[in-house]
Amino acid sequence: MKEKPLILVTNDDGILAPGLRALVDIVSPIGDVVVVAPDSPQSGKGHAITINEPLRINEVKVFGEIRAFECSGTPVDCVKLAMNVIEKDRPFDLCVSGINHGSNAAINIIYSGTLSAAMEASLEGVNSIGFSLLDYSFSADFEPCKPYLSQIVKYVLQNGVDQSRLLNVNIPAGDIEGVKVCRQGEAKWVEEFQQGTDPRGESYYWLTGRFENMDPGQDTDIYALDHGYISIVPSMHDLTHHSVIDIIKPLEQIKLGYDTK
Amino acid sequence: MKEKPLILVTNDDGILAPGLRALVDIVSPIGDVVVVAPDSPQSGKGHAITINEPLRINEVKVFGEIRAFECSGTPVDCVKLAMNVIEKDRPFDLCVSGINHGSNAAINIIYSGTLSAAMEASLEGVNSIGFSLLDYSFSADFEPCKPYLSQIVKYVLQNGVDQSRLLNVNIPAGDIEGVKVCRQGEAKWVEEFQQGTDPRGESYYWLTGRFENMDPGQDTDIYALDHGYISIVPSMHDLTHHSVIDIIKPLEQIKLGYDTK
Repeated sequence: MKEKPLILVTNDDGILAPGLRALVDIVSPIGDVVVVAPDSPQSGKGHAITINEPLRINEVKVFGEIRAFECSGTPVDCVKLAMNVIEKDRPFDLCVSGINHGSNAAINIIYSGTLSAAMEASLEGVNSIGFSLLDYSFSADFEPCKPYLSQIVKYVLQNGVDQSRLLNVNIPAGDIEGVKVCRQGEAKWVEEFQQGTDPRGESYYWLTGRFENMDPGQDTDIYALDHGYISIVPSMHDLTHHSVIDIIKPLEQIKLGYDTK
Repeated sequence: MKEKPLILVTNDDGILAPGLRALVDIVSPIGDVVVVAPDSPQSGKGHAITINEPLRINEVKVFGEIRAFECSGTPVDCVKLAMNVIEKDRPFDLCVSGINHGSNAAINIIYSGTLSAAMEASLEGVNSIGFSLLDYSFSADFEPCKPYLSQIVKYVLQNGVDQSRLLNVNIPAGDIEGVKVCRQGEAKWVEEFQQGTDPRGESYYWLTGRFENMDPGQDTDIYALDHGYISIVPSMHDLTHHSVIDIIKPLEQIKLGYDTK
C-alpha cells in the first residue's frame, strides 16, 4: 500500500469501553484511524437504526491525536454517519468493530451491535471485521490477543476476503492456541425471564438465559473457541436459503379465487 | 390437522397498526390466535433485544375475543415473551409477523423488526412468515392481498418450508399478478442525512436515503415486486459465506510472534 489505509473503528459497548481502546491500539500503527462509537452502551441492538429521532455527533479527545466522535445512535447509525457525514469525501479501506466484551459466535451474530456495525460497512463495499472476546467483564484482558488481531487486520488489508467482506472473529478468554477459519455453529439461547414486582406493585420480566450448542460439527466457531482457537467466520448479508427455493415453488400456483376461504 | 393450530401474531408497527389487524383477520379463521405486539412503533429495530431494562406485558382487548398483549420491548422481545412467558406450556405451530407498512424486500430484511421477530420464532423451531406491503401509509389498503396471504399461511401449515423455517413475503401496492418464489435481491440504501439546527442551536442529523437496486437478476424479490407479483424468499439465520471459507484458510497460519509489529 502506497499510503496509509483509512480505518474506521466502532463498537457497541460505547466510546469509553476498554475493548474499543484495545482495538485503537491495534490499528493505529497500521493506518489512519477515525473512531465513531456510541455515546452509551448499545449491546444487543442488532441491526437497529434510528429513524424517528435526530442523531448527535460530538468530537471527543479520548484517544490523543486520533480523531474520535461519539454518536447518540446505534452502532449501525455510527457507521452510516462515519461514511456519509464525518468522512463523506474519503472512502474507508477497512472497518473494524469491537473488541466486544463477550462472545458473538454462532447465533449471537444476529443480536450483536458489534457485528451489525461491521455488516453495515460491508454493505457499502468496505471490508469489515467484528472482534469479540469471550469475557463479559469490564476488566477483560485484551493484551494476549493483540498480536493475533494485528495480523488478521494486515491480512485483510493486503488480501481482502473475496466476496464475503465481513469476518466474524471471536477470541477465547484464556490461552490462545492459534486461528481457525470456521462456519457459524448452530446454537440457540434457552430463554428464561426473571419475573419481579416493581416498587409500584407492577409485574416486570427481565431477559436472562443460557447459550446452548446444538451442533456436533468440528468445523464450527463454537468448537474452535472451546479448544482455545480464535475463530474466523466469513459472513454475509444474503439470508436466502437457496436450496429451499425449488422446494417451495408450488406456492407460485396460488391464484386469486382458488381458495379464498 | 386434527385440532386448530396455535398461531402467534406480531409486528413492528405496534399493537394498533392497521396491518396487524389485517393479519389477525387473515389467520383467525385458520387457527387459535395469540397476538403479542409492541406497545409503540418499532420500525428499523432489526434484531434488537432489551437486556438492560425490565419488560412489561399488558393484556389488551383490541381484537374482540382474541387474546392480545402489548409489550414494552422490541419485536424480538415480543416473540421471546410469547414463547417463554405468555404461552410457555403450549408450542406455537406458526408465527406470522406484519403486515408491515412498507417494503422488507432485499437488504431491508436486515433492518426489519417485522422479519427479525419472525426469525426469532424460526430460531425456536417454529415456521414463521414475515409479511410486508409496499405502502408506507397508515391508510394502506390490505384488502386485495388477504386471499393470497390466507393461502400462503395454509400452505405453510400443511407443507412446512423444509429447512428454511422463515419466509420473507412482500406484496406489491397495486394489482397483484400472482406469486413468485425468489432469492433476496442485491440492493442498498444510498444514505443522506438531513442536517439541521435545533432550538438550542445544536446540530443534528436525521437519516434519509433512497433504495438502489444493484441486481440485474430476474429471479430476485425486487424484480417480482416490480412486475406486480408477491415475492416469497425462503430465508435463514446462517450468515456464513461458505464458499469463502477455503479462500481465507491462509489466516490459520497466523502464529504468535510471527509478525507482531
